[in-house]
Amino acid sequence: MRTGAEFIASLNDGRRVWVGDELIEDLATHPKTKGYVEAIAKFYDLHHDPEFQDRTTFVDEAGVRRSRVWFIPRTKEELRQRRAFYETMMREVGGTAFSRMPDSSNAVLLTYIDDPEPWETQSIGTEGRPLAQNIRDKWAFFADEDIYTSAMFIDPQTDRGGDGSGPSPALTIVGETDEGIIVNGVKPVGTSAAFAQWLHLGVFFRPGLPPDQVIFGVIPTNTPGVTIVSRESYVNDDAANHPMAAMGDELDSAAIIENVLIPWDCVFHVRNVEHAMLYPKRVFDWHQYYVLVRAAVRAELMVGLAMAMANSLGTYEIPEVKVRLAKFVEFQHILQAAVLAAEEHGFITPGGQFKPAPLRVDTGRAYFLEHYPAMIQELLDLCGRVALMYPSEGQWNDEKLRKWMEPTVTGAHGDGYDRIKMARVIHDLFLTEWGTRQQMFDNFQSTPLRMIRFLNMMRFYQTPTGDHIDFARQVCGIEKAETAIDAQPAYIRRIDRAAAPAGAAT
Amino acid sequence: MRTGAEFIASLNDGRRVWVGDELIEDLATHPKTKGYVEAIAKFYDLHHDPEFQDRTTFVDEAGVRRSRVWFIPRTKEELRQRRAFYETMMREVGGTAFSRMPDSSNAVLLTYIDDPEPWETQSIGTEGRPLAQNIRDKWAFFADEDIYTSAMFIDPQTDRGGDGSGPSPALTIVGETDEGIIVNGVKPVGTSAAFAQWLHLGVFFRPGLPPDQVIFGVIPTNTPGVTIVSRESYVNDDAANHPMAAMGDELDSAAIIENVLIPWDCVFHVRNVEHAMLYPKRVFDWHQYYVLVRAAVRAELMVGLAMAMANSLGTYEIPEVKVRLAKFVEFQHILQAAVLAAEEHGFITPGGQFKPAPLRVDTGRAYFLEHYPAMIQELLDLCGRVALMYPSEGQWNDEKLRKWMEPTVTGAHGDGYDRIKMARVIHDLFLTEWGTRQQMFDNFQSTPLRMIRFLNMMRFYQTPTGDHIDFARQVCGIEKAETAIDAQPAYIRRIDRAAAPAGAAT
Amino acid sequence: MRTGAEFIASLNDGRRVWVGDELIEDLATHPKTKGYVEAIAKFYDLHHDPEFQDRTTFVDEAGVRRSRVWFIPRTKEELRQRRAFYETMMREVGGTAFSRMPDSSNAVLLTYIDDPEPWETQSIGTEGRPLAQNIRDKWAFFADEDIYTSAMFIDPQTDRGGDGSGPSPALTIVGETDEGIIVNGVKPVGTSAAFAQWLHLGVFFRPGLPPDQVIFGVIPTNTPGVTIVSRESYVNDDAANHPMAAMGDELDSAAIIENVLIPWDCVFHVRNVEHAMLYPKRVFDWHQYYVLVRAAVRAELMVGLAMAMANSLGTYEIPEVKVRLAKFVEFQHILQAAVLAAEEHGFITPGGQFKPAPLRVDTGRAYFLEHYPAMIQELLDLCGRVALMYPSEGQWNDEKLRKWMEPTVTGAHGDGYDRIKMARVIHDLFLTEWGTRQQMFDNFQSTPLRMIRFLNMMRFYQTPTGDHIDFARQVCGIEKAETAIDAQPAYIRRIDRAAAPAGAAT
Amino acid sequence: MRTGAEFIASLNDGRRVWVGDELIEDLATHPKTKGYVEAIAKFYDLHHDPEFQDRTTFVDEAGVRRSRVWFIPRTKEELRQRRAFYETMMREVGGTAFSRMPDSSNAVLLTYIDDPEPWETQSIGTEGRPLAQNIRDKWAFFADEDIYTSAMFIDPQTDRGGDGSGPSPALTIVGETDEGIIVNGVKPVGTSAAFAQWLHLGVFFRPGLPPDQVIFGVIPTNTPGVTIVSRESYVNDDAANHPMAAMGDELDSAAIIENVLIPWDCVFHVRNVEHAMLYPKRVFDWHQYYVLVRAAVRAELMVGLAMAMANSLGTYEIPEVKVRLAKFVEFQHILQAAVLAAEEHGFITPGGQFKPAPLRVDTGRAYFLEHYPAMIQELLDLCGRVALMYPSEGQWNDEKLRKWMEPTVTGAHGDGYDRIKMARVIHDLFLTEWGTRQQMFDNFQSTPLRMIRFLNMMRFYQTPTGDHIDFARQVCGIEKAETAIDAQPAYIRRIDRAAAPAGAAT
Repeated sequence: MRTGAEFIASLNDGRRVWVGDELIEDLATHPKTKGYVEAIAKFYDLHHDPEFQDRTTFVDEAGVRRSRVWFIPRTKEELRQRRAFYETMMREVGGTAFSRMPDSSNAVLLTYIDDPEPWETQSIGTEGRPLAQNIRDKWAFFADEDIYTSAMFIDPQTDRGGDGSGPSPALTIVGETDEGIIVNGVKPVGTSAAFAQWLHLGVFFRPGLPPDQVIFGVIPTNTPGVTIVSRESYVNDDAANHPMAAMGDELDSAAIIENVLIPWDCVFHVRNVEHAMLYPKRVFDWHQYYVLVRAAVRAELMVGLAMAMANSLGTYEIPEVKVRLAKFVEFQHILQAAVLAAEEHGFITPGGQFKPAPLRVDTGRAYFLEHYPAMIQELLDLCGRVALMYPSEGQWNDEKLRKWMEPTVTGAHGDGYDRIKMARVIHDLFLTEWGTRQQMFDNFQSTPLRMIRFLNMMRFYQTPTGDHIDFARQVCGIEKAETAIDAQPAYIRRIDRAAAPAGAAT
Repeated sequence: MRTGAEFIASLNDGRRVWVGDELIEDLATHPKTKGYVEAIAKFYDLHHDPEFQDRTTFVDEAGVRRSRVWFIPRTKEELRQRRAFYETMMREVGGTAFSRMPDSSNAVLLTYIDDPEPWETQSIGTEGRPLAQNIRDKWAFFADEDIYTSAMFIDPQTDRGGDGSGPSPALTIVGETDEGIIVNGVKPVGTSAAFAQWLHLGVFFRPGLPPDQVIFGVIPTNTPGVTIVSRESYVNDDAANHPMAAMGDELDSAAIIENVLIPWDCVFHVRNVEHAMLYPKRVFDWHQYYVLVRAAVRAELMVGLAMAMANSLGTYEIPEVKVRLAKFVEFQHILQAAVLAAEEHGFITPGGQFKPAPLRVDTGRAYFLEHYPAMIQELLDLCGRVALMYPSEGQWNDEKLRKWMEPTVTGAHGDGYDRIKMARVIHDLFLTEWGTRQQMFDNFQSTPLRMIRFLNMMRFYQTPTGDHIDFARQVCGIEKAETAIDAQPAYIRRIDRAAAPAGAAT
Repeated sequence: MRTGAEFIASLNDGRRVWVGDELIEDLATHPKTKGYVEAIAKFYDLHHDPEFQDRTTFVDEAGVRRSRVWFIPRTKEELRQRRAFYETMMREVGGTAFSRMPDSSNAVLLTYIDDPEPWETQSIGTEGRPLAQNIRDKWAFFADEDIYTSAMFIDPQTDRGGDGSGPSPALTIVGETDEGIIVNGVKPVGTSAAFAQWLHLGVFFRPGLPPDQVIFGVIPTNTPGVTIVSRESYVNDDAANHPMAAMGDELDSAAIIENVLIPWDCVFHVRNVEHAMLYPKRVFDWHQYYVLVRAAVRAELMVGLAMAMANSLGTYEIPEVKVRLAKFVEFQHILQAAVLAAEEHGFITPGGQFKPAPLRVDTGRAYFLEHYPAMIQELLDLCGRVALMYPSEGQWNDEKLRKWMEPTVTGAHGDGYDRIKMARVIHDLFLTEWGTRQQMFDNFQSTPLRMIRFLNMMRFYQTPTGDHIDFARQVCGIEKAETAIDAQPAYIRRIDRAAAPAGAAT
Repeated sequence: MRTGAEFIASLNDGRRVWVGDELIEDLATHPKTKGYVEAIAKFYDLHHDPEFQDRTTFVDEAGVRRSRVWFIPRTKEELRQRRAFYETMMREVGGTAFSRMPDSSNAVLLTYIDDPEPWETQSIGTEGRPLAQNIRDKWAFFADEDIYTSAMFIDPQTDRGGDGSGPSPALTIVGETDEGIIVNGVKPVGTSAAFAQWLHLGVFFRPGLPPDQVIFGVIPTNTPGVTIVSRESYVNDDAANHPMAAMGDELDSAAIIENVLIPWDCVFHVRNVEHAMLYPKRVFDWHQYYVLVRAAVRAELMVGLAMAMANSLGTYEIPEVKVRLAKFVEFQHILQAAVLAAEEHGFITPGGQFKPAPLRVDTGRAYFLEHYPAMIQELLDLCGRVALMYPSEGQWNDEKLRKWMEPTVTGAHGDGYDRIKMARVIHDLFLTEWGTRQQMFDNFQSTPLRMIRFLNMMRFYQTPTGDHIDFARQVCGIEKAETAIDAQPAYIRRIDRAAAPAGAAT
């Protein structure tokens, strides 16, 4: 298993990374990037820490201890072990601030390894090439090397109202040789791509998508011809006043990929537009489960911040404030219940994975996206001005000022500096560029609310003729209507859901 | 086990029942009451129907087959059996239209039988009387006779802004003899009281509550001196046009109780105001679980109605409509997840019951109350005018009219009459007096939203010093604050929750 | 001017009216219809009542006193006089319960008379026929006779997801003679059509609308071949317990129109689909203003009900209740402000009318539709159980019961019977079939919320290149973008808005 | 009238200002403060610019041209002139980013000068001192010198749950001499206080407020013993990438006031707790009108940003996006309507001011606070990732990068750099520390939503016995209830509202 030091060393591999207006020489030392590098190093080191090793590692059938990143759950109990790994990392590294560490960013590979055949059989123009075996080989290689991959699927936001068929800077196959395919273009969104060792390229369906933009495969980040172009970093390196925002920024980047050859053994699938419509959504199923778990842990953090701040302000005893605090408890409970339900309704896939029920996962995510902004508002409203106005570290350390400022932050319970520490965390999480980026990112990463809902209804069993409306039929006294279900390929259904549990809407 | 016919016969016992402007001679035949009588008869008969007996009955340790009403779950699996019983009755009798059949109305007795001692030991002025044994005896008697009880706890809505201590028509102890206590006054709310065989009297704490209004016990409905006074019935007996609203009305009633003697063996507790503050809330814990299960089944009905209607209207294929339909799926999934979470976090009480976690139950109920009105609006908005305007049965049966009206209700899928059948159900459920009463009732029965939230925060483990904010403390780097927890009696805690599960906010 | 008695007499004209399962012999005496007949009679009589005549009538240029129904405002002050007429009728007849009395239902004719030419010039296949003059003549005739017309524009809700071109029972031109056009089909929605003397036929655009379904004109309700088919009546004729729901039901009806000849002088326009897209929306501009005014008056009623009930319950002094009551005040203030803004931004049309700004009107309507359901919930929640449970008139009049029930409804202020009177009004308005119908009707009559919003953005000046985004351009430092505006005909623009006021988003 | 240069010069007066961890030497040159200094200088210079002078200045009765800051509107037309002044400054200086420039911060003085007598007559322990004349003299002096004052009213957020009477660091009278009063303590919130020339001290009522903390008066900012302690500055001085956030930060500051003598001629009122309960709320009436106008202009900016971005993305033509854009139009229209209504319902105060109706103003503010967060979310959701991810200025200027990045930001309409410019503005306004501070500040400055609502109901005419519920009484058939109105002093009523307009809820 990789150590933090090994990870840091691996970054020095010649990759080209812009962050805002600067080309970064050394990610590990530049103030805008070093925080996140250290966070990932800590992530790797926790695999070697005896205190955490139970939760962060497992011993595979061959007796090799590996990161739980590479652990494939085959029972409900094992799924919960994978969740415990996620929760541990969220609690120990970044306090839910990071969303695409190796635990989550590599999770998308689980769908490939679950069911590699369709990637090969559906592929167009690659007859005879062992794409399914490529998938198996790369999984083994990534696991052996404990690699950090970053997924880049989204295409440029050019003319959303158009039919999607116009000229586009999107990554496109421009040639093909015995060595592999030659691709050219931009993948505009890859979170943590600047820090990952390999880029995982894919594509989401859009109407008008040209077959030559249907590309699934992997390349090393330092491949010549690849330039990572990130938005500016939102790190605030004043750690005393900004304990959270100083922790690092995972960076959202584009990748410019200029006439790069992807060797055949790195190619997983090309050119089937229908496959691109059906499969990539499912690729992210495992990732969405991670997203939901993170939402639940974030909610737990918010319960605590709200309660602790109310206690400090002395408002906790006010009945109306209690009523408002109860909403945080509900928010956390519902997200946790959604996790439980996804696990309870989990099923065994054809590849033998015990997979959380996708529709249950997405229900939880929709709930989170719908209510999260209001919960943030509520938390800030409960704080009142203290989320903005509190003595800075320098003011606090100036004895003459502290004498006056201390009573202004000392309340019913706890000392004044505790209130400042809470205020800093709340401020950084919700009121800084660093914090709002997380909220924005949660809103569009792996599908925004409307899209979640639309896609949920595209799952094949979610139709007006499905079993889940039997009760309504019984009450109304009507028969099944004769709507044609949009039949979906069996190879899709089997990773969506096992046979429907009797009598239950799933 | 009681049969439907036996139940109907039992009503003819001399009870005095007003419904609106009328004193009802015979509940079983009067058009305003017979529907509900028949529904309860069906409830009883389903215990004798082999198709349902697995779910509706059990065989007790003595080998006696009894209704699952009297089944005390002792494991998670048994709790789910109790749930299956609830769900079966909801699906088979009334389609979630009834909320206080014997399954739910008798459930409140479970808390007494779980832990009868405090009722006796906390009681004031009853030293030496075996109140705990009264509880055990009455439970046995009710189970043996398969009795239908109706709980009456709420006091009159006189001056809510006052301190609660003024003169009140509330039920009060006005005398005491060797036979029992003499009580006089009004219990203004009892749902199904007109139909139940026994009234279960209790009280909720309010500031200023006089000790002599703290009365817990049971009396037969036909006790001389008792008059049941119900609001008018909302039954619409035009069953052809109103299939749901014709099914019966459980009626919300007051009981006027004039100088009635409650014999000592029917008394469970009197006069301890603190007990009234702590315990009755817990009495309804089992009932609230039923309420949550009903909410989930109601949501399932709504998913189906929305989907089937969209299918009939031909709007199902419109992406924006899909996005809206997804909200119904989420609504149902979250309620179902709340049920699962309450069961998963269930615990063994001192009396050995496996009890669903109250805070989880109440979270689900709060979610339901907060979102239900908007879901109703959404359903009606998806229907558009068809929830109001559809041919009546008479119009449909008039050949000349039908020729013209049929095409106006025939849409993309299904025949026109199916749309009418759906419209009738939606109309009755949400747009009639009969239907809005259910919504209103759900809103205030066993505590409205604000009160749920307030009471949730009064559970002892829900404080700013609890374990559930440890994660926030860790992130902020602060210690536990020194807030005093409002210590609550151990006898309360043990029916609230077992020992906290490690590391989890419950 | 018509009297109430004259109106009642006029109903006896041979019209065929089904209400629910019955063919009604005499609207004026049938319990399901007489309430509304009496309400309209009162409407007419208020024109002859000296106390109200200032607000309900005007003297025209020829010295004739007419109903303000026929008053064409030419200044802002005159527009406010028209509003005062509306408000008077709402306050005196039905307390905002009726939405299509002659004041509002005839208002749609104002757009025709404002600008009759395009109806003629855009018409197809009617060259040489004086359609514009028909409009002028009919206006004069209706005003002279003080006629009550009812608009029927909507087409059947068959397959909303289809392209609208399939076979349809919608009203269609099936022949044409020298006398007029022959039409056949159903107009499925006309509120008050059963009571009006003339039906005003029109159509709304939908994709695929066939030209032969584009028909604008008028016919008497009693025309042979016309059958009015209404949903069942929601009148509750127990006036003691249901003071509001006993007042009458305006009924929503379909009209079956079987091979009816519409004489040429009753034809306003036919066959131009583009005209049907652009104009009918504008026909209802005047009606929407009425709808907005009614919303504001309804909001005023709700402020009062909420305040008075809180006062009776004694909750008014609770700070959190004050906070909730303030929302009713805001609701009413915003609606009233929307009325004021529509008047302030009003403009002179080509025909010289002073017309309230349509976009302002629709903004107010959207606000109402979005927030009304939540305000109803809030009102009911503030009432708690008293919206359901209160003594019936018969119970109150039974001395023995009253003795007990009176204290249960007597609160902090006012006597108990006052609380009952308020509860009845609230119950009838929001919890009966009669009351929910109003809410449903408001939701879809003259366009539901989404449609209001969509249509608002179709007003030509509401584009990304309009002046109303100049401030954003200035702040961003960007020029006008080159988006093509969907040019709309000048004859549309001129009834949408006069020249844009300088510097203001309108 | 002051010039910008004069303003800048005036800052060099020895004041002590901490900003975050630093004691600032020179506000005019320090990067964290110079932006805002320049903005105020621009504010002053616009008074001398002929293009704007009509809107920014007036000529008083003595023929002196003054800033409209000092203009007392005496008619509705003059009130609108004052509004035009506000709107001009918002549009020309900061694009609604600044909330306490001299136009708004001095507006609070209007209530004093309107009605100075009660300040003197209600004052305790100051008999014989001409406090009313002090008010008149200071108004004249401030107007002559064109002074920038900053109000500091709020007290420390210590134990909100307590009774307010405990020891507090709040500013307190600790002595009194012939020269004046000696005060000591902290005023924890003053926006722009670091930049203003005078501090305007006041206090808001809280239960338990000690009389010696009731202090109203003015002192120069550079008074020895005064230290201004500001939170850190949120300026981002990378103006190329952050055009908005680089414009300056008005800073929210505490003032430590150590044993400072306030000369008698600077004292307006002391020690009357009841006065502190009734009056300061009214002091801010004029300010709240400004706040509402700013909300309306901010909404206009948001309409434009949403429309222009949708146009760039090509989403404008999608019907569902149109529906969402319509919400921005409604948001702006309702706020503008609230401004109009406040003006329409304005009244003449005892001092002859034409004052906008406070309840109407506060209705508009409540609407803004309730809906603003959701509108921000909606705007960000319409942007999708582009609010976060767009090429930085340095990336854009790198020719090789631009070649690839340009197509990723080029959409349906307009060039790519325009989209970047819009994205920067949206990002800065809503996603930076600088931008979120504005939202937070709007939420608590001059009362948060709940407090607005509570205070609205404390206006004397807003009771269950007021005229505004007459319509409900009429419909229910009930008489006025006998609730006692909390009588409020006449001197309060007269600045709340003139005599109630007949028949209207105000």
